[in-house]
Amino acid sequence: MVQAVWEDGTKQHVQRLEKLDQWVAEWRSDAEKGRCASYIPALKRVNPAQLGICIIEPTGKMTVSGDWEAPFTLQSISKVISLIAACCHHGIPYVLERVDVEPTGDAFNSIIRLEMHKPGKPFNPMINAGAITVASLLPGKSEQKLAYANRIFQKLTGTLPLVNEEVFRSEWTTSHRNRALSHYLKDTGFLECEVEEALEVYLKLCSIEVDSQQIALIGLILALDGFHPLLQEQILPKQVVRLAKALMLTCGMYDASGKFAAHVGLPAKSGVSGGIMTMVPPKQNAASHFPDGCGIGLFGPAIDECGNSVAGVSLLKHIAQEWDLSIF
Amino acid sequence: MVQAVWEDGTKQHVQRLEKLDQWVAEWRSDAEKGRCASYIPALKRVNPAQLGICIIEPTGKMTVSGDWEAPFTLQSISKVISLIAACCHHGIPYVLERVDVEPTGDAFNSIIRLEMHKPGKPFNPMINAGAITVASLLPGKSEQKLAYANRIFQKLTGTLPLVNEEVFRSEWTTSHRNRALSHYLKDTGFLECEVEEALEVYLKLCSIEVDSQQIALIGLILALDGFHPLLQEQILPKQVVRLAKALMLTCGMYDASGKFAAHVGLPAKSGVSGGIMTMVPPKQNAASHFPDGCGIGLFGPAIDECGNSVAGVSLLKHIAQEWDLSIF
Amino acid sequence: MVQAVWEDGTKQHVQRLEKLDQWVAEWRSDAEKGRCASYIPALKRVNPAQLGICIIEPTGKMTVSGDWEAPFTLQSISKVISLIAACCHHGIPYVLERVDVEPTGDAFNSIIRLEMHKPGKPFNPMINAGAITVASLLPGKSEQKLAYANRIFQKLTGTLPLVNEEVFRSEWTTSHRNRALSHYLKDTGFLECEVEEALEVYLKLCSIEVDSQQIALIGLILALDGFHPLLQEQILPKQVVRLAKALMLTCGMYDASGKFAAHVGLPAKSGVSGGIMTMVPPKQNAASHFPDGCGIGLFGPAIDECGNSVAGVSLLKHIAQEWDLSIF
Amino acid sequence: MVQAVWEDGTKQHVQRLEKLDQWVAEWRSDAEKGRCASYIPALKRVNPAQLGICIIEPTGKMTVSGDWEAPFTLQSISKVISLIAACCHHGIPYVLERVDVEPTGDAFNSIIRLEMHKPGKPFNPMINAGAITVASLLPGKSEQKLAYANRIFQKLTGTLPLVNEEVFRSEWTTSHRNRALSHYLKDTGFLECEVEEALEVYLKLCSIEVDSQQIALIGLILALDGFHPLLQEQILPKQVVRLAKALMLTCGMYDASGKFAAHVGLPAKSGVSGGIMTMVPPKQNAASHFPDGCGIGLFGPAIDECGNSVAGVSLLKHIAQEWDLSIF
Repeated sequence: MVQAVWEDGTKQHVQRLEKLDQWVAEWRSDAEKGRCASYIPALKRVNPAQLGICIIEPTGKMTVSGDWEAPFTLQSISKVISLIAACCHHGIPYVLERVDVEPTGDAFNSIIRLEMHKPGKPFNPMINAGAITVASLLPGKSEQKLAYANRIFQKLTGTLPLVNEEVFRSEWTTSHRNRALSHYLKDTGFLECEVEEALEVYLKLCSIEVDSQQIALIGLILALDGFHPLLQEQILPKQVVRLAKALMLTCGMYDASGKFAAHVGLPAKSGVSGGIMTMVPPKQNAASHFPDGCGIGLFGPAIDECGNSVAGVSLLKHIAQEWDLSIF
Repeated sequence: MVQAVWEDGTKQHVQRLEKLDQWVAEWRSDAEKGRCASYIPALKRVNPAQLGICIIEPTGKMTVSGDWEAPFTLQSISKVISLIAACCHHGIPYVLERVDVEPTGDAFNSIIRLEMHKPGKPFNPMINAGAITVASLLPGKSEQKLAYANRIFQKLTGTLPLVNEEVFRSEWTTSHRNRALSHYLKDTGFLECEVEEALEVYLKLCSIEVDSQQIALIGLILALDGFHPLLQEQILPKQVVRLAKALMLTCGMYDASGKFAAHVGLPAKSGVSGGIMTMVPPKQNAASHFPDGCGIGLFGPAIDECGNSVAGVSLLKHIAQEWDLSIF
Repeated sequence: MVQAVWEDGTKQHVQRLEKLDQWVAEWRSDAEKGRCASYIPALKRVNPAQLGICIIEPTGKMTVSGDWEAPFTLQSISKVISLIAACCHHGIPYVLERVDVEPTGDAFNSIIRLEMHKPGKPFNPMINAGAITVASLLPGKSEQKLAYANRIFQKLTGTLPLVNEEVFRSEWTTSHRNRALSHYLKDTGFLECEVEEALEVYLKLCSIEVDSQQIALIGLILALDGFHPLLQEQILPKQVVRLAKALMLTCGMYDASGKFAAHVGLPAKSGVSGGIMTMVPPKQNAASHFPDGCGIGLFGPAIDECGNSVAGVSLLKHIAQEWDLSIF
Repeated sequence: MVQAVWEDGTKQHVQRLEKLDQWVAEWRSDAEKGRCASYIPALKRVNPAQLGICIIEPTGKMTVSGDWEAPFTLQSISKVISLIAACCHHGIPYVLERVDVEPTGDAFNSIIRLEMHKPGKPFNPMINAGAITVASLLPGKSEQKLAYANRIFQKLTGTLPLVNEEVFRSEWTTSHRNRALSHYLKDTGFLECEVEEALEVYLKLCSIEVDSQQIALIGLILALDGFHPLLQEQILPKQVVRLAKALMLTCGMYDASGKFAAHVGLPAKSGVSGGIMTMVPPKQNAASHFPDGCGIGLFGPAIDECGNSVAGVSLLKHIAQEWDLSIF
């Protein structure tokens, strides 16, 4: 699929690789400040010291470092895909009648706001309550819902998504908080299917196994407003992608989204497995090292109390500053 | 100060003006859905049907329409200036130890989160609790604090700020909620001066009288990362401006910030007087009508329940879509 | 079982009956201010204009009026029985380690406090979260748990409890909010069995069909600290009954418990079916019409927004004042 | 005033004294689990190891032990007096339109509920928000308000209240949280006078110096529904006293009111100075050691995180159980 141009021989690319290797080595130790998600048993066994990154440019050129080939599950990164899928099917207005787009400052699995605000509309599709609602909006029954989202995934990555069954089973049997959220949403009328159905779709999408190259590619296509540069084809509606990026910037990094926007300045979505999908939109700014934009996939499984990769956020903060990548 | 190039004779500019006049006329009626801020008596008497806009480009070229010359008070738009001032004096890290940068989803004058989260650090400098804390960080005593922020204002606009004394008096005597917030912050130790002092500085900055041209100019300089294009001089540190823009995007439009980011996609700050300061950063994107960036000042005093100009937000939504201005 | 002394021929008893009939007639119209619980479909069909009361004294003398023979389901009144059952089996300290005894001021089905307070211990056994936790503490598996509570019910009333299957089915299939609470409690570790098991026990106890005579008799025995005056036997531990009465007074009338304590001043427990079980402890106070104590069962299915019988609360307020029944 | 019958020579009284001395000695060490209120500087300097109790019976017979003569300030115990005063002047309905009577489960100085519930009516007069509102309801200006409450105090104790000026000054200058509450209440319209006025009255009432004998006497009169047994005169309206006792039981011990009701079972009000005023209403119950009722004053300055005397609560729990004092 991606015809990666591994070595372009330019001095600039070589220098960039050297820098990246150095920074990955440097920030890897930040993993010690976090730990692997423990509430999903299958995630607890991962080696927390991993750190890998993959950057893909519109030409297909890839810059990679560290454990960039390590597999991990999408977890909350899937929230971007299901949002895009729901919007593709229903149109943006239908979806936004059922899920708001406001950041909350609350933890990803918080339930408070559903009760405090009437009528309990989930605040945004990047937190669990919103994403479960979005999953319920996908067309058809359980399997069809999943298939619909899978097709979006396939369009973006060129590969069929594979669910890590062990992770899915693990989440399915332990996901009491998500069940609480789902039943709450069923009670307030925001869930458009049965609780078990929405939850199955939601957790299966969370359990899709990827590597940093795949999410870097998705990031690249989002950076280009839905245009696939290698296929030279607009594969997603521009307005839907714009909405997704705005939500990633305001709500994509759980209750540290504001800090990520302030210190990194890029739309991003993290998952508790330690993945971060982010992107640099094309920018006239001469200082940026990626004037034509790029997609970035990152993996660092030790997460902080908000749910974000500790080493990953540190590395991205550093890269964004050194290479002047902020959209602001 | 601004040597505005009023008429550049180009066909493109004339067409843009025609469009703008048409849209202002069209969206002006949206004011009926809102009403002038009533909790500040002096604001209640303003004619709610006004709507004006001023766009300034780096060359100084201005495109204006409607009630763009109408005066209004900065109100919460001043939060951007005091944040910049505090960061210029103390450096960013010092300020962010005392105010977080997370959006909340709560109303601008909410006090709940100060109690729910320990140790009660205000969530961001764009809500009242955070802005009062920032005001307390400005150097010196009352008058000096004000003078320090005023100098930033003067640098940005070329004019000395004038406080509308009637509005200030009106706010000073009725601002019970802000006093509640201030005393709460004093209790939790986040206020670095006396309550009355912080409040006076905060409310005087809110009461500075401006017009849409002045805030458009500030917006333009922020769009250019602190570079004043007419003076050809970097007047503010780039990192501070970047932080301010990130906060405007995630938290600048009160508890509708997420919706503004999703539907307009520009850093912006609103005030309950009906002003909105926003900006378009320079962007390679060929579709945008302002590839070199611009500053936008808007005034429409009828506000919605979140505190944002109703007609103003509608107009900006329309302009951003028509002229492809979103940063995403 | 109750050998009711229907007519004692005394002038006092006749006068009391006359008064009661008059007041029931008078307050019956208050039902118009409320409506039957709509979230449980089977309860919606009940005639809201009913109002009945049964008062039983230690001698077995009954004073009845209105629709005192109408059947209704226990609903939240069962929370008292399951609390007593759990305390009888485990002892009070074990139970109170898992459920607190603080009133909340929140709605009966509120979930906020479970998240706001660490570690999410339910605030008291008279709200749903606490009662579901208590149900999970009953000994054995599903059927045994139920049997254990049923034996307490039988001890108190002399009859085996009958579950209204239609009501139970109706609740079982619509009880999304209770499922949300249960899964939340499972997540935080307070549930001592599976969610479905706790919920089945909880909802079956809620669906036990009674009439006002039965709950008056339970009330009487509680008034006498667990002593059954007709059997002349201490059937429940005094300390457990005391705890139950304290909790009824502080938390028994949902988020109107404070008002009921202030205006009526009796330990009471209401259910959304419109039942209220209350009691007058023996009291030296010469003014009281029931110096030796009594149990009161009441039924009035139109409930207010807190979940309490509208006409029932009005009637009790009046009776308590006229006959000087308050424990304060 | 109180013609205390110190020694009645009966064997029963001597035995009771011996027991009490033994229990005070035993529970005094519980003070180590708490510490003196630190947020009021003048309270910090008190010896935390003190523990004293005074019990007064309707005959005037006193049973005392430990540091019963130590002076302390009323603090929140004054909330009972100001509530009674406001109800005496305005009647109960007027007061309850402005302050609710629901327990909250929140800390005494919590502000959350004022924002969460519309229209922000304080939940009960036993927490700071409610008591400040009640202070604002007292008739006349500042000095008159105080004088009005003082007269109630004098009626109850026979002595004019003396404000501990040092404590008052200390509270006045440090009471930022109470100022926050007051300004919030002013904003929502529940305060019937200026913030500073209500606060002065509230804090002066908090700063009245008493000893355990005085509050035991107040407790005794409340136990007897407003009847002063030594003067043989009804000095307060029975309905007002009943309301006060109901509120003490449901809300009088801060956010441990439910636990106190469950484990002690007596109406009580505590203050952060370590005082507890409680009472045993007359009761037919043969088991109780005070069948004719009594008032109890207690002082133990080391408080727990809820604000209640640690040793005091332990001692009362023990006494209530041993002497069977619970009203339930």
